[in-house]
Amino acid sequence: MRERRYSSTSPEHLAAALFDVAAQAGLEGASVREVAKRAGVSIGAVQHHFSTKDEMFAFALRTLVDKLLTRLADVDQDGEPARGLFSALSQLLPLDEARSREAHVMAGFAVRAATSASLAEIRRTTLFTIRTKLSAVLIGMGVHEAETRAALLLAAVDGLALHALGSPGLYPPEYLEHALDIQIAMVLQGAEVVPTTSAIELAS
Amino acid sequence: MRERRYSSTSPEHLAAALFDVAAQAGLEGASVREVAKRAGVSIGAVQHHFSTKDEMFAFALRTLVDKLLTRLADVDQDGEPARGLFSALSQLLPLDEARSREAHVMAGFAVRAATSASLAEIRRTTLFTIRTKLSAVLIGMGVHEAETRAALLLAAVDGLALHALGSPGLYPPEYLEHALDIQIAMVLQGAEVVPTTSAIELAS
Repeated sequence: MRERRYSSTSPEHLAAALFDVAAQAGLEGASVREVAKRAGVSIGAVQHHFSTKDEMFAFALRTLVDKLLTRLADVDQDGEPARGLFSALSQLLPLDEARSREAHVMAGFAVRAATSASLAEIRRTTLFTIRTKLSAVLIGMGVHEAETRAALLLAAVDGLALHALGSPGLYPPEYLEHALDIQIAMVLQGAEVVPTTSAIELAS
Repeated sequence: MRERRYSSTSPEHLAAALFDVAAQAGLEGASVREVAKRAGVSIGAVQHHFSTKDEMFAFALRTLVDKLLTRLADVDQDGEPARGLFSALSQLLPLDEARSREAHVMAGFAVRAATSASLAEIRRTTLFTIRTKLSAVLIGMGVHEAETRAALLLAAVDGLALHALGSPGLYPPEYLEHALDIQIAMVLQGAEVVPTTSAIELAS
């Protein structure tokens, strides 16, 4: 009987419930009790899957990160690089209701990573993965200081998302898109500083 | 007797206690009970000064913002503009223990502004104030798209601070300083796009 009751839920279902609670009330509202209530299961069912709140949070963060990384990877990179960067990074900006909810929950996890070793580890791996992918694109374009510029691209995007959280009026979607455009243009200006292979060939 | 007991504390003393608790455990740990304990006063003494937790948080955020804005304004702006921007914005980066604590608490307030009207109002005013001051410096230098570039400068700084929270190893102080240097250089490259008044005079 015990197993049967717990089989009515899954870690994924609980992670989705946690996301809903956190998107509405912040992570501080995502207690085991509230997550159980939102998921429509008992507190015991949550505890069956996650022995601590930190474990529940870590699973929910990994679920959110996986979703975002899949969306980032799905962006067509065959076209113009500046356009590919824009399409990928605009996935992380609060340009609609769904992405606003994601940005809110993700920023909450970022702050909580300061006091949670398990969340910090997931955040570190995620940041490193995204930075490395952005770097590869910039190196391919012959951009000077590619690694630092990749970090700045990601920092500007997450900073804009953070600023938009409580001030959507100051950061409407069209403004966020325009700002991302400008940041990408600034980062790619670095391509003019260091000549690409073809430019070297032309010069010799 | 009642007044006498409450006069043993002040809103500023409570805000300092809240900051200490939040810097260590995050804002979610800053309950009225914990703040009272840290301040060494009764729960009633906290409630005497702040009738709600939101009111206590708003006062603490305003205190932190005032402190940061005073430090930003104190930066000597008489020298080279790029250097002035660096000195001002590095106040917001977690380059030492004190600034790491401030960045942690400030990011917590930024996230909570998504669900608190009073915190959102303070954040909005603060962002607008800093963006306007940065804009004025960039306009003075003839930088193209000064307002958007000012917003991006601030976004990159707060994004770097957010990323450093759980990943100090990926973002050591010298790396953060180097990244800020590059972001400022990229933003100021815009000065070359639109000619300044003196450049127009030289050309005519």
